[in-house]
This record gives sequence, structure tokens and C-alpha cells, in this order.
Amino acid sequence: MAVESVEVFGPGYREVSVGQIVTLATTQPLTLSSGKQISHFPLAYQTYGTLNEAHSNAILVCHGLTADQYLASRHPVTDKDGWWDLYVGPGKPIDTERFFVICANVLGGSMGSFGPKTTNPVTQTPLGLDFPVVTIHDMVDAQLLLLDILGINKLAAVVGGSMGGMQALSFATRHPDRTGAAMVIAASARHSAQNIAFHEIGRQAIMVDADWKQGRYYDDRSFPAKGLAVARMAAHVTYLSELGLQKKFGRGLQDRERVTYGFDADFKIESYLRHQGSSFVERFDPNSYFYITRAMDYFDLAEEHQGNLAEAFLPAKEVKFCIVSFSSDWLFTPQESRNMVRALNGVGAAVTYADIESDKGHDAFLLPSKSFESVMRGFLWTLPL
Amino acid sequence: MAVESVEVFGPGYREVSVGQIVTLATTQPLTLSSGKQISHFPLAYQTYGTLNEAHSNAILVCHGLTADQYLASRHPVTDKDGWWDLYVGPGKPIDTERFFVICANVLGGSMGSFGPKTTNPVTQTPLGLDFPVVTIHDMVDAQLLLLDILGINKLAAVVGGSMGGMQALSFATRHPDRTGAAMVIAASARHSAQNIAFHEIGRQAIMVDADWKQGRYYDDRSFPAKGLAVARMAAHVTYLSELGLQKKFGRGLQDRERVTYGFDADFKIESYLRHQGSSFVERFDPNSYFYITRAMDYFDLAEEHQGNLAEAFLPAKEVKFCIVSFSSDWLFTPQESRNMVRALNGVGAAVTYADIESDKGHDAFLLPSKSFESVMRGFLWTLPL
Repeated sequence: MAVESVEVFGPGYREVSVGQIVTLATTQPLTLSSGKQISHFPLAYQTYGTLNEAHSNAILVCHGLTADQYLASRHPVTDKDGWWDLYVGPGKPIDTERFFVICANVLGGSMGSFGPKTTNPVTQTPLGLDFPVVTIHDMVDAQLLLLDILGINKLAAVVGGSMGGMQALSFATRHPDRTGAAMVIAASARHSAQNIAFHEIGRQAIMVDADWKQGRYYDDRSFPAKGLAVARMAAHVTYLSELGLQKKFGRGLQDRERVTYGFDADFKIESYLRHQGSSFVERFDPNSYFYITRAMDYFDLAEEHQGNLAEAFLPAKEVKFCIVSFSSDWLFTPQESRNMVRALNGVGAAVTYADIESDKGHDAFLLPSKSFESVMRGFLWTLPL
Repeated sequence: MAVESVEVFGPGYREVSVGQIVTLATTQPLTLSSGKQISHFPLAYQTYGTLNEAHSNAILVCHGLTADQYLASRHPVTDKDGWWDLYVGPGKPIDTERFFVICANVLGGSMGSFGPKTTNPVTQTPLGLDFPVVTIHDMVDAQLLLLDILGINKLAAVVGGSMGGMQALSFATRHPDRTGAAMVIAASARHSAQNIAFHEIGRQAIMVDADWKQGRYYDDRSFPAKGLAVARMAAHVTYLSELGLQKKFGRGLQDRERVTYGFDADFKIESYLRHQGSSFVERFDPNSYFYITRAMDYFDLAEEHQGNLAEAFLPAKEVKFCIVSFSSDWLFTPQESRNMVRALNGVGAAVTYADIESDKGHDAFLLPSKSFESVMRGFLWTLPL
């Protein structure tokens, strides 16, 4: 495989305009799964709480497809609360008085980390599709370099939901000496055919948009906002459950007494989806949607071990696992979680499993739940620090 | 409500170029659910078998969203077999030696019936979005006019799968004197919030396409083929089951040994979906996709009876019903079918119900199944003719 080196910034680069951004310069460049090498690239992150003297109270939270490093603090673009404010903060399950919490924007992201929006120092234009395809492993390895810089040799835990759960799995199985525990929420050890299908639909929707221009839209007044909105709408349906949709919207009409016999958003669910689509495009780079969905598509822990998932978990048998699923999640089903639990049991790893009753679908891990809260607290607060 | 009259053709119009097309000219124009009236409009249909002397052996088959009148004969555009060839023909469950089988392209369709592609005789351009929004009831009422022309006072049965099942329900409950039986397959008495959501995603994908031009693309060299392909892809995923996808494609790669670290169709499922999208656009008018999905969105039998589904079935208690669902169908779930059975039982209607075990999802009603075949044969062959 051709090895290609992508060096974005010189060693001296450091930016602090949006949150904290460090340049990850190492003596060795980071070799990606594709074989390409990257060096001196930016990684944007936020931290919450204080690192203790022993440097033993750090929790790395890995974010999902469309989230970012603004875990528990005001988002600079949307001005909304952090995406996991419910569960991260003083006295909350991921207790910032107890833990030093780190959250970094993933490789390929659009909130300051190395991604398609990053300027190519040679051409002085954004990389666009010249950005290399990255995997979940690559995302993890970049965050490991950040831990090195922060002086954290071993995490108390790595925690993540959805794609964040994939990262937690990658971290725990590939760097088991670097974490004491892994909490894998609403995730799976592989992306299913159905899930790849929905990602492909989203990517195709972006490509339909005339403003996409093969990803070279950064200097233009327009960008593929409409295509990205459709991608978001298609994804969003997979985050909810049929029952939840029925309960929340049913066939209710939006601000009208009767249907209009037209193609306006007659139904609440249409209006809701359109809003989800249009608000998403404010904060997310369409090219990042390509890269991050692709990283998820490529994720399959067992495949790297001849289809044997237990073997993938073998190196991690000293890591304490907590696997959480939500009963109505059809994107990452409870069955996928049970498959992981079975494989972990197969290698004698310490694993606790909770399937939480919910009608909120995949989105449940972002919503209030007493059960989920107590599972998190029970697992994380008993970890040895 | 404003009543507007749309008269497409003069009374003398008759076309036979694509299949059989009759002009439905009645003394009274047809009043649509919206209040608009249409008259002298074309309806394209195919028949199979021979009408008996008593005119009592007719079965009307109603087609689904993307099908048409080419039920059991070569499709003139795709040159493929009829969409229900498996189940319609000599000796088959819908036995053309026993029954006179009629299938008409729905209102709003693109294979010759009155739809957005139809030329407006005043402007001499296709109607496009000037075509009126139609409902399932309107589709049924247009087919009823066809039955009048064919001299069929009472059907042996009305049969339909998916949107065809909605039409069968509309027919049986609104014109119970015109049919002896109704076979409702993989359908529901109402379109769910989740299903409306998927339709809205499809419509939005078409609108993203710069070639859509508010539906005025007929005279141009291009049409919104890419947007329609994405709509089809999104819909197609809902026709399959997660298990079926996993069995058929899994994470298998398409004509390659390893992933390419790019955005080509690395996975079989991606390649399959792309093919589904691109082949669909050959035979389907994007504007029709708007109208037909909207008709389904608007369908809710119970709503018209203050939410009481049993009351909707009350007029049809002399009609023999056969309700069929497929276990892995998540578009029109077995639960939706059971709700109909319960309501039918509530009014003492004769109803048989079969939930057929299958991993083929909603698509199952179009695929070979011995169980389904025997349910159809058992129901239809014992009808009094």
C-alpha cells in the first residue's frame, strides 16, 4: 500500500480560538489504517474538572457521528448546552468533581480537529476530499496522542455512545494498558448492512446537491446545505423508535386543522424533520459527514480477527467493561450488545450489561433516564482511581 | 373549500398506445377528496383472463407505490416480467383461467393514467405540480368508474399489497356493495409517523436535485434522476428487513478484496442500493413520487370515524376479508394488521388473518412464498363466483 505523508502544520502551530486546540506533533508521524501518514495535525478538545496528582482520575468521553468536543459546555456555534450536559458535570454520573473529563473532536470532524475543512498549508485551500479516509482506530490513536500531551498514562475509563462506543471498543481492545475500564453505550462491534445503507443514502443525498461540487465548496457563497439536511433527516429517523414517533407525533398536523392537499409540512413529523435538517447544517461540514460515516461503515472488530469477536476482546480481558443498550434502539440493537457481552464472557473479561427499557430509540443515550444514570453512576463511581 | 374543475380531455378521447387506456368520461365529474373535480381523464389498465357471462369473476388488483398496471405481462419500458407474475396467471393463486383480473395504473401514476405527466390541453404542457393532490379514496373511485365501463357491477374480490392494500380497504369500506371480498396484504389502515417521515425524506431528496425545477422538467434534457434515485434508496431500505439485509449482503465487499479507503461502493449493500436507485428512475416520474407518497401519507381510515377503526369497517361487515402480514415487515407491521383484524372482529365481519413467517421484510409479498401462495389460493378459490 502506498504510504503518503500528510503534514498539515509545522511543529510550532498552536491555536486556541475555538476551545482548546493542540497540534499533535510526535517524533513518529501517525500511520492511519489506510497506510497514509499524518503529522503535526490539530486536535480540538475540551476538558472538565481537575486532573488529580496521580493522574489517575481521567475519563475520555468519545463523541458520536454528529457531536463534538462541547460535551458539557456551551457550544460556540449553536449557543446550546453541551450535548451530554445531562450526564456530565458536578455531582452527575460523569462527575467533574471526581473525574478529569476530556472530550476531543474526532479526526475528520468539523469543530477544529484535523478534517476536510483544515487548510492545506501548501495550497492554502481547505483539504476537502484530499483529506485522507480515517477509521475509528485512527480517531482513537489521535486521542491517545492527546493523552500523552496531557500526561495521562492510564485512563480511569473510556466512555462513549454510538460511534463513541465504537471508539471505546477500539481503545480498550487496542490499548488495554491505557485504560482501566470501558463503557460502551448504544453501540456495536460492527456496523450492520442496514446501517451502512442509511449512511450511503445520506452521502448520496449530499452528492445530489449541486452545491456539493466534489467537496470544493468552501470558497463559495453556497454549500450543500440542502443535501446535508436530507442526510440528517434520513439519519434522524434511525435515531428514534417507531413507537416513540407514534407517541410524540403520531399523525398530528402542524399548525392546521386539516390537511392542505399539497406538499407543505402538513404533519408534525414532517415539520420536525425539516427543522432537524435545517438546524444541523449550521454546525456541520458536509464533507465531515462523508468521512465520519465512512469510519463507522468500516468498523468491524471481529473481521480483524477472522470473524472471531472473542479474540478481538482477548487483549482487553483486564479491562472492566460496562455495555449498555436501549430496548427500542434499532440502529444499534440490544442484540448487538448481547453479542459483545457473550464475546467478553468468552474471554473471561469483567463485564456488566444493562438493557434499559425505553421507547426513545437510539437517541435514548442523550435523553434523561434515571435507569441509565444509575447504571453510569454505579459503574463509574466504583472504579479504583 | 374551493371547488375547481380540471377537465383534461374532451369526451371523445381514447388512447391505446401503451396498454389499454380509457378516458373516464361520466355524466358527473369525479369529485376528489380535496374538493376539486376532474372529468374526462385517462386511466391506463391491463386485463388478464376472461370475464364470465354473469360478470361475477372479476378481481381488481390494486398496485403499490412504484408498481403499475403491468401486473402479469411484460413491462413496455423495462422489458421485465409483470410485478406479480409469481402469483397471477393460469393455475396461479390469482388464476387467470378462473378469474378476470384487472389492474389499473393509479391516479397520479406515470404509466398512462391521469397524473403529473399528463398534458394540460389548454397549455399543451405536462401538468407537473398543477396536477391535483389525490388520495387513496380518489384512486379507488377512479377505478370504480373503470369497472362501470367494463360492465362489472360487483367484484369477486379486490386485492392489494402495500398501498394496494390501502386501496382494497378503501374500496371495501366505501363501496361494500361493489365487492364480495377484500384481500389486504402487508398494509395498514393508516400511514404511521415513521412512514410519513420516510416519504418526506424521499420528497426532500428529489427537491434537492437542481434538475427538479418545481416539477417543470419535462421539456428539458435532464430530470431529477439523482434525487429520485436517493428517494428510491431510502424507501428500498424500508422494504427489506435488517436480518434479510444481513443474510443477503452482510458486510460483504463488492468485487474487491479489501476496502478502498474512499467513497466508492466498497460494500455490496452500497452497490445494490445504487443499482436500485438508478434502475428505478428509468420507469418512474419524479412528480408521481410526490403525489403517490402523499396519497399514502393522507390515508387514515379511523380518522374519518373519530379514531374508531371498527366504525370504519361497519359498512363492510358483509365483505369477506383476508388480512395478510409478514413477520419481518417493519414498514407495515403485523401489529398494524392485527389492529385491523381486531376492528373487523368488533363489527362481526368475516375475517381470516395470516401472519407469514419471513425474513424478507415488506418486499415479501412480491417474492416466492409457499405459505403466502396457499393463503391466497385458500381464500380466493373458495369465493362464490
